[in-house]
Amino acid sequence: MDEFDFIQSIKPSYYKQSSVVKGIGDDGAIIRPTFGQDLVITSDTMVENVHFSLDYMSFEDVGYRVLAANLSDVAAMGAVPRYYIVNINVPEQISNEELVLVYQGMKELADSYRVDLIGGDTVSGKEFSISITAFGSVSPELKRNRSSAEDGDIVFVTGSLGDSGYGYELLNRNEVDFNNYFVKRHVRPEPQVSFVNATEKFDRISLNDVSDGISSELNEIAQASKTNLLIEWERLPYRKELNELDEHKLDECILSFGEDFELVGTCPEKDWELLKDKCKQVGITVTNIGRVLASTKDQPSVFLHKDGERRVLQSSGYQHR
Amino acid sequence: MDEFDFIQSIKPSYYKQSSVVKGIGDDGAIIRPTFGQDLVITSDTMVENVHFSLDYMSFEDVGYRVLAANLSDVAAMGAVPRYYIVNINVPEQISNEELVLVYQGMKELADSYRVDLIGGDTVSGKEFSISITAFGSVSPELKRNRSSAEDGDIVFVTGSLGDSGYGYELLNRNEVDFNNYFVKRHVRPEPQVSFVNATEKFDRISLNDVSDGISSELNEIAQASKTNLLIEWERLPYRKELNELDEHKLDECILSFGEDFELVGTCPEKDWELLKDKCKQVGITVTNIGRVLASTKDQPSVFLHKDGERRVLQSSGYQHR
Repeated sequence: MDEFDFIQSIKPSYYKQSSVVKGIGDDGAIIRPTFGQDLVITSDTMVENVHFSLDYMSFEDVGYRVLAANLSDVAAMGAVPRYYIVNINVPEQISNEELVLVYQGMKELADSYRVDLIGGDTVSGKEFSISITAFGSVSPELKRNRSSAEDGDIVFVTGSLGDSGYGYELLNRNEVDFNNYFVKRHVRPEPQVSFVNATEKFDRISLNDVSDGISSELNEIAQASKTNLLIEWERLPYRKELNELDEHKLDECILSFGEDFELVGTCPEKDWELLKDKCKQVGITVTNIGRVLASTKDQPSVFLHKDGERRVLQSSGYQHR
Repeated sequence: MDEFDFIQSIKPSYYKQSSVVKGIGDDGAIIRPTFGQDLVITSDTMVENVHFSLDYMSFEDVGYRVLAANLSDVAAMGAVPRYYIVNINVPEQISNEELVLVYQGMKELADSYRVDLIGGDTVSGKEFSISITAFGSVSPELKRNRSSAEDGDIVFVTGSLGDSGYGYELLNRNEVDFNNYFVKRHVRPEPQVSFVNATEKFDRISLNDVSDGISSELNEIAQASKTNLLIEWERLPYRKELNELDEHKLDECILSFGEDFELVGTCPEKDWELLKDKCKQVGITVTNIGRVLASTKDQPSVFLHKDGERRVLQSSGYQHR
C-alpha cells in the first residue's frame, strides 16, 4: 500500500458533523464553528512501551485507546466531541496495512459518538508514537472547570474505580484473557461522553477525568478551586474482584493508577439527586464519595477518611513523566 | 527544573488573542470563535534526524522551524494564524531547560504574528519529535483552495526558490556560517503570513505552500483543479549564488527540495497587477512563472518549458515518507 492508497483508506467518505467545511485533502481542515458555542481543544501523546504496548494490544486497540483518552479530556471539559486530528510517528517495521488498523480502532470509537477525523500527519521515525488533538463544543454559560468546586458540594465519581489498574495487574500475571472485563477496561477504556449529554442542563459542575488516578485529579480540583475535599474510602466504588489484592495494591489501583477514564467532580447538593437520575437514564452510575469543605487559608488539601482516621491524600497519581 | 516549573515557564502570562477563553491549565483549551469566520486547522510532525538536526540547529531553531512549517500551512489556506498546540516526545538526554529553549524559539516566531500557545502535551520517549497543530481564521467567502485554479490564470510564486535547499547544501559542505543568508533560510524559514493580509480583498486565489518543492505543489494544484499548468523555467525566481551548482543540483534546489515555505498559486489575470502591488506594499515579491491551461480530459499535468523544450514536470518533490 503506497502513501496515496493509505490516505484514501483512512479518509472518510463523508463527514458526520455538518460543521466540517473541508476535511482531509488540502494544507489544512476548515470548520465552521456553531454560533454561540465555544470550542474545546485537547491534546494527548502516547508512546509505545510508555503509554501502551503491542505485547498485549492489537493495532486497533492502540488507536481506540489513544482516541478514548482524548475524548475523555473533551468530556471532562463538559463538551460534546466533534472532530479529531492524528499525528503518527511510525517506525519502518510497522506496515501501512497495520497503520490502517490503528485508524480503524479510532474510527470504531469515533463512529459511536459521530466524531470526524479531519486531518493529521504521518511521518517515519524510530519510535511509534501517536498524538491526537480532539475538539468538542460547549455552551459558554456552562461551568465545567476544575476551579468550579464550592463549599458544601457533593464530590462524585462515575462508574467504578481501579478497573484499568486491575486489568493491567492481570496482564502482568500473564492471565491474558482478552475477554476478561478488567483487561478490556484497560485496553479499551470508554470515555464518559454520555455524561456530558445527560448533564447539559446543570449550571455548575466541577469536572476532571480519571487519567492519572483520583488522588491526583482530586488534588487538581482542590487546588484550582482553592477548597478542601473530604473523601470517604468506604464510599469509593470498586468491583468486588479487587478485594483479592493486598492493601497496598488495592490502594494503588483505586487511588493512583488511573486510566479508568471515569469522571470525578463536584456539584451543588441541591442538584445531586437530579444529576444521579439523569445519569441513570443514560446508563451511568454516579457515586457520592465525599464533600467539599470550607476553603482555608492553608494549602488546599484532599483528606481521605479511612479506618477511622483522616489522612492527607497526596497527589501521588502515577506520572508517565 | 521540575514538571510544575516547566509548565510555568512555557505558560503565557496573557493571551494576545481575545478569543482565547482558557489557555493552558485544564484538561483542554477553550476558544470562542469569531462569528462569521471559519477556523483552519493544520498539523505537522517533525522528527529529529528526519526533518531537523541538532548538529547544526539550536533548540530555539528547532522550535522556530516546526512552528514556521505549520504557520506556512495556515497561510496557504489564506488564513490568519491565531493559536497553536504543541506535543513533544522528549528523550531523557534533553533537559527541561533545553526543552524550554524549543518553546522560546516558537514563541519568538509566534509573537511576531500575535499567535498564542494554548495547550499540548509533553511525554518521555526515546526519539525527539514535535507535533504542532496550528489554527487560523478565514472568511468563508474567500477561495484559497488548491482546487481554485481556472483556465487563463497567472501562476505565481512569492520570494525566491531554492534558498533552503542551497542552505542545506552549504551545511553539508561544512561551510557552516550561521549568519549566511541561505543557511538562515534553511534553519529559520519565514512563513508568508503577510501575503494573507495583503490579499484579503481578492475573491479567488489558488494557493499552496512550498514545503515539498514546487514540482509537487504545482502538481497538487493541477490535480485538485483539474487543469494543466505551463511553467517557464526562465521566469523561476532564484538567487544568482545558486548558479555555481551543477544543473542536476540546481534543478533539485529549485524544483523539488522545497522547505522554502514560499507560497505558490494562481490568480485571475485581471487581478495580477493589483496582487503584485498589494504584496509589494508588505515587502513581498511575487513573480509570474506561467499560466493555467485549458483543462483536458487527460490526467492533469504540469509542463515545464526549458531550453526550448516542453517537458512534463513530475511530482518529484522530496518525500520524507
